[in-house]
Amino acid sequence: MLSRMPAPTKRTQVHRHPERGDYDRATIDQILDEALICHVAFNDGDGAPRCLPTIHARVGDTVYLHGSTAARAWKALRGGAEVCIVATIVDGLVMARSAFNHSMNYRSVVVFGTAREVTQEEELHTAAAAITSHVAPGREDEARMPTAAEYKQTLLLAVPLEEASAKVRTGPPKDDGDDIALPIWAGVLPMATNAGDPDPSPDLAPGIDVPPSVSGYHRPGTR
Amino acid sequence: MLSRMPAPTKRTQVHRHPERGDYDRATIDQILDEALICHVAFNDGDGAPRCLPTIHARVGDTVYLHGSTAARAWKALRGGAEVCIVATIVDGLVMARSAFNHSMNYRSVVVFGTAREVTQEEELHTAAAAITSHVAPGREDEARMPTAAEYKQTLLLAVPLEEASAKVRTGPPKDDGDDIALPIWAGVLPMATNAGDPDPSPDLAPGIDVPPSVSGYHRPGTR
Repeated sequence: MLSRMPAPTKRTQVHRHPERGDYDRATIDQILDEALICHVAFNDGDGAPRCLPTIHARVGDTVYLHGSTAARAWKALRGGAEVCIVATIVDGLVMARSAFNHSMNYRSVVVFGTAREVTQEEELHTAAAAITSHVAPGREDEARMPTAAEYKQTLLLAVPLEEASAKVRTGPPKDDGDDIALPIWAGVLPMATNAGDPDPSPDLAPGIDVPPSVSGYHRPGTR
Repeated sequence: MLSRMPAPTKRTQVHRHPERGDYDRATIDQILDEALICHVAFNDGDGAPRCLPTIHARVGDTVYLHGSTAARAWKALRGGAEVCIVATIVDGLVMARSAFNHSMNYRSVVVFGTAREVTQEEELHTAAAAITSHVAPGREDEARMPTAAEYKQTLLLAVPLEEASAKVRTGPPKDDGDDIALPIWAGVLPMATNAGDPDPSPDLAPGIDVPPSVSGYHRPGTR
């Protein structure tokens, strides 16, 4: 695995706020692994832009995307379509004195690539386990894993993690000169996505405890 | 304002899980207003898909998007580009007995349209106030609003809320027949994005209290 991405391309180079660009694989991997979902952009058959929220998972140098073979919107992606995957984590609202300098603390990753449909049995298992584990680490060892019939209804796509970059903003607001003296509160309001209390299914049989994948749930790298 | 969207188009009709489709403007508006950020897909100059996370705000039948005139990636959007805007809120992880029936409780909105650059002074003010208020309601009355020079560096785009739909999943997992008897925990783990404690800017003058837009922060509709 590369510790750093190859030289940034025109699309992955961060031009606006270049100080926020990060091309280290460790940063990219951590954001992809922590972000619960991603958004996938692609062109539909008519060349118009489409965007779908979906679950992803990273296995080494591959990003897997999860869809359904029955979903019309995903069909355009089965034949080797170009995609742009974005995973975004909002860490805080940056409140400056000026509206103009308001910002967000965030970590995002963009991945460009061509999607390949996963069809080989072993890779289907790998991808399904990775997707399950991405949502709730350890769940892949608790849940009943898919049958051949279920795999036929599941669309798993693989995109190589080759053309990618991260963009990260941290820290306090940056107001300009005179604004700093204004009597307006400035600072950061941290934001985080947290799990609540597990809500058992109404048809859950008595005596089945909340499993390790659910109790004490947290995103990878957040604790 | 329309209380319901016009007849769904091929792109906004929810085909996969049609029971999750919602074409009511009240549902669409609530999701757009609650979602802190959105993802915008469009085609770059070479016809390849691009996707950017950004802040949006809805004002009546218009969705405003916030970018920078200095940002290369946004430039393709200034000349009337087709966009696909997606706002997604994850409400819970749906843990079924089978990996196949795992899902998420979520609310998402997709908006298709052509982006128009906002250039008229009054609409720039409207859009900037809406974007500021979207992030933190009331902040538009606290912060110093933009100068003409700052508007020149701000790219505000307007997309009509005409071709849009919502997709919503709620409720417990739905396992199939035999799986229900498996000794595997099933249920929903609720997820929510919450604000932490405000972190004042290191250069904040003493005696400035945390303002209403920051104290007791919550997304619209969540309390």
